[in-house]
Amino acid sequence: MPAIIDHEHRRRELAQIVADIIVTSGLNAVTVRSVAAAAGFSTAVVSHYFQSKRDLLFYSYRRAEARATERLQAAAAQGGDALRILECLLPLTPEARRDWMVWAVFWGEALADPELSAEQRSQFRKARRRFERLIAGSLRAAGTRRTRRVQEDARRVLTVLIGLVVQAAFDPEDWPAHRQRAYLSEALGLARRD
Amino acid sequence: MPAIIDHEHRRRELAQIVADIIVTSGLNAVTVRSVAAAAGFSTAVVSHYFQSKRDLLFYSYRRAEARATERLQAAAAQGGDALRILECLLPLTPEARRDWMVWAVFWGEALADPELSAEQRSQFRKARRRFERLIAGSLRAAGTRRTRRVQEDARRVLTVLIGLVVQAAFDPEDWPAHRQRAYLSEALGLARRD
Repeated sequence: MPAIIDHEHRRRELAQIVADIIVTSGLNAVTVRSVAAAAGFSTAVVSHYFQSKRDLLFYSYRRAEARATERLQAAAAQGGDALRILECLLPLTPEARRDWMVWAVFWGEALADPELSAEQRSQFRKARRRFERLIAGSLRAAGTRRTRRVQEDARRVLTVLIGLVVQAAFDPEDWPAHRQRAYLSEALGLARRD
Repeated sequence: MPAIIDHEHRRRELAQIVADIIVTSGLNAVTVRSVAAAAGFSTAVVSHYFQSKRDLLFYSYRRAEARATERLQAAAAQGGDALRILECLLPLTPEARRDWMVWAVFWGEALADPELSAEQRSQFRKARRRFERLIAGSLRAAGTRRTRRVQEDARRVLTVLIGLVVQAAFDPEDWPAHRQRAYLSEALGLARRD
């Protein structure tokens, strides 16, 4: 494998390990040493790929974002309406739950860090634009006249996703799949449950 | 001051310092040493009140919760409908923003910590019950027949609050006061903006 690809491959492998440690033991357990031990490398090897714990977290955050985007694109390629496509972001699979946990941990770290905050701000805006395109595409495919405010729908979807994911992370029994889907559906303006 | 009251007073003082450090420098900057330095105490004094950084964070989290409850009770005592009362929880003042930041940082720490997770789960449930009572009281005061599903309203309010607070923390310009209020209003089922 060419060196550049191998470099990126190795970084992704380490990012995956970071995500796993975050889920099972928390961010405090993520150290260059613990990541190296889990990967079966020396700390020198890990340090070659990442300068610090902050670097490890930042890259793991971006990988979680890339994986979620891939899931969204795969779901969109299968067709269906915006609700069905966006459901792949709900924390109903171990993969989706892990990505959300990496993000939530990142929020705590990013709040007082201007560079990480700017990254998070940009990611929220990108996510909303992605949702807008999905929703607009779904309306076009259904032959619905675009009278709905797609931007507001996308903003509501992101707001509800964050709110339900944080609660479901601590109280999964209280957020069964049908409730998560109902909230997403309502955010899309598809149903009002009262 | 009697010793027990003084003990609690000192703990609150230190919790306030922890919250300030979290807001300005992040959780990484919270150490027994940095808290002692900011308080003008020796680390031995801080260690007398808190056994660890985790203890400091846990107590600061509970204090943020207690302050928010006090704000909610003060707002409720002034009367008005549920929307007006719940607005005191929106991150529109430095105090409310600080409390939410302490919570968001706590989420990141609590996710992989069973004891802290249980505390967070319990707090979310308590918050919802508090919202339910507020909403029910507001409907009674307005002479509205209780046909609305108060439990669902309370759940939607908490979901929207968490979702908007996380976004507003990173992108305050994108979440001006009128938008935050509109989202809270919609969560209460008072308005649908499209």
